[in-house]
Amino acid sequence: MSLLVVGSVAFDTIETPHGKRERIAGGSCVHFSYSAAYLTPVKMIGVVGKDYPKEFIDLLNERGIDTSGIEHTDGETFFWSGKYEGDMNEAETLETRLNVFGDFRPKVEGEDKDAKFVFLANGHPLTQLSLLEQLNNPTLVIADTMDLWIREFRPDLEKLLNKIDALVLNDGEARLLTGERSMIRAARKLLAAHELKLIIIKKGEHGSLAVTPDFVIATPAYPTEAVIDPTGAGDSFAGGTLGYLSLCGELNQGTLRRAIRYGTVCASFQVEDFSLDRHKGLTRADIERRLIDFEHML
Amino acid sequence: MSLLVVGSVAFDTIETPHGKRERIAGGSCVHFSYSAAYLTPVKMIGVVGKDYPKEFIDLLNERGIDTSGIEHTDGETFFWSGKYEGDMNEAETLETRLNVFGDFRPKVEGEDKDAKFVFLANGHPLTQLSLLEQLNNPTLVIADTMDLWIREFRPDLEKLLNKIDALVLNDGEARLLTGERSMIRAARKLLAAHELKLIIIKKGEHGSLAVTPDFVIATPAYPTEAVIDPTGAGDSFAGGTLGYLSLCGELNQGTLRRAIRYGTVCASFQVEDFSLDRHKGLTRADIERRLIDFEHML
Repeated sequence: MSLLVVGSVAFDTIETPHGKRERIAGGSCVHFSYSAAYLTPVKMIGVVGKDYPKEFIDLLNERGIDTSGIEHTDGETFFWSGKYEGDMNEAETLETRLNVFGDFRPKVEGEDKDAKFVFLANGHPLTQLSLLEQLNNPTLVIADTMDLWIREFRPDLEKLLNKIDALVLNDGEARLLTGERSMIRAARKLLAAHELKLIIIKKGEHGSLAVTPDFVIATPAYPTEAVIDPTGAGDSFAGGTLGYLSLCGELNQGTLRRAIRYGTVCASFQVEDFSLDRHKGLTRADIERRLIDFEHML
Repeated sequence: MSLLVVGSVAFDTIETPHGKRERIAGGSCVHFSYSAAYLTPVKMIGVVGKDYPKEFIDLLNERGIDTSGIEHTDGETFFWSGKYEGDMNEAETLETRLNVFGDFRPKVEGEDKDAKFVFLANGHPLTQLSLLEQLNNPTLVIADTMDLWIREFRPDLEKLLNKIDALVLNDGEARLLTGERSMIRAARKLLAAHELKLIIIKKGEHGSLAVTPDFVIATPAYPTEAVIDPTGAGDSFAGGTLGYLSLCGELNQGTLRRAIRYGTVCASFQVEDFSLDRHKGLTRADIERRLIDFEHML
């Protein structure tokens, strides 16, 4: 059974202190899937326009990712343009054109309805909800979100939070959502308010904090020598994490601890180049080698 | 043999979003020693003026700290005043009066000259050097520093760096000193430039990174529920760390990993109240309990 993921498939135009790239392969669903696929079969659900090139789909298929759930429509593909400066902790969004992703309502068909591990990558909470409602009996549904939905679509987001098992978000979003400065407090508040099983707070170059009602896992980031482009790091992290949980088939302190380490390693590669360029040349063996290296540091 | 520490003994006047306290016990040497003393005998070298109250000395003595190396002079004690706002990551210094600490040249006497583990807490590099030059054959000398010395007394600081074994500094200082954005690169640059054995980069609420020529240790922070006053956290961290190394008598990957966890736990208590107020009521057992709790999170 594949790990099912819904989210954006996009063109990104990105400028960082290390260069500028136009209309490269991006999107939360793409970055998540490309990392998760090191560990488990992945099925993507998304939408692209007629401008989306076959090479990008080929790239995903070569990784073994099932892209048959990507709808091809007549419109234009989601486009995002951003710029990073200084410490590159946050992108300045220059342009967002949702295009065909704007009112996308994913369709889940056949055996995908029985998916056990599901990632609702960053997207409108109603898009995320509409996928969720088509599932039969998932084991673990994890959603990501972003400041836009927290600020402007809060009721929809709250509805979503009441129906999922776990939420992954970054520290700024956790603060925005709960009003708490302490990340452990923010996580506990969210767990209680929505009867969630797990909150993972991503702190970028500072690692992550996973909080459940029963335990806490604090993990530093892998100390990266050079960050070329941080885009997709959070999705890559989630991909490695949920990829490993899906592989194991269950969430407990042991599986989650190791899952987060896989996620951390995937994200550490993600930031070393633009788009999928760093991951493209890697195999599972490279992931394992860096995981061992990382575990020696812990 | 005691762990020898030289540094400031001060009055602090501090304002945080949680309140304001005037002329409370502060100083790098005090915060370091108070945490190190959970783990090992500590001897302080410092200077105070005639305004320094006996109660503050009593507090240190009650912890078993040897304060006989604190010179009592006719002047006024070092005074620092600062304010924290927002995320409290950095203090705004409102006033610094070095007073008797300004041209302090520590005197090391008797068996203290044979000290094996030595901490040169934040102070003028020439103060730090003058202590170092009086030692016979120390095993491990670790220094702290700050932006002021990096910016304005760089030649003195470089001289110091060439004579010590290890440096502990925060991420902003590491960036300032090396021009590197990547903390692992900054650490490696410092190791190479000054033939050091160890660099520990403190990242406040984001944990720490320890780098030696042979290995790296990445440690997250203890996830604190409420930060009341971050003053002294870095010194408390260094105190727990070096306190444990001094207890073990050697620096290797195993001792350092555990040492940093002790440091992390000491710092996590430090920020929970002003001055020494949180530590005052704690025993070694409290430190051990939180260490176990912390290790479960890792």
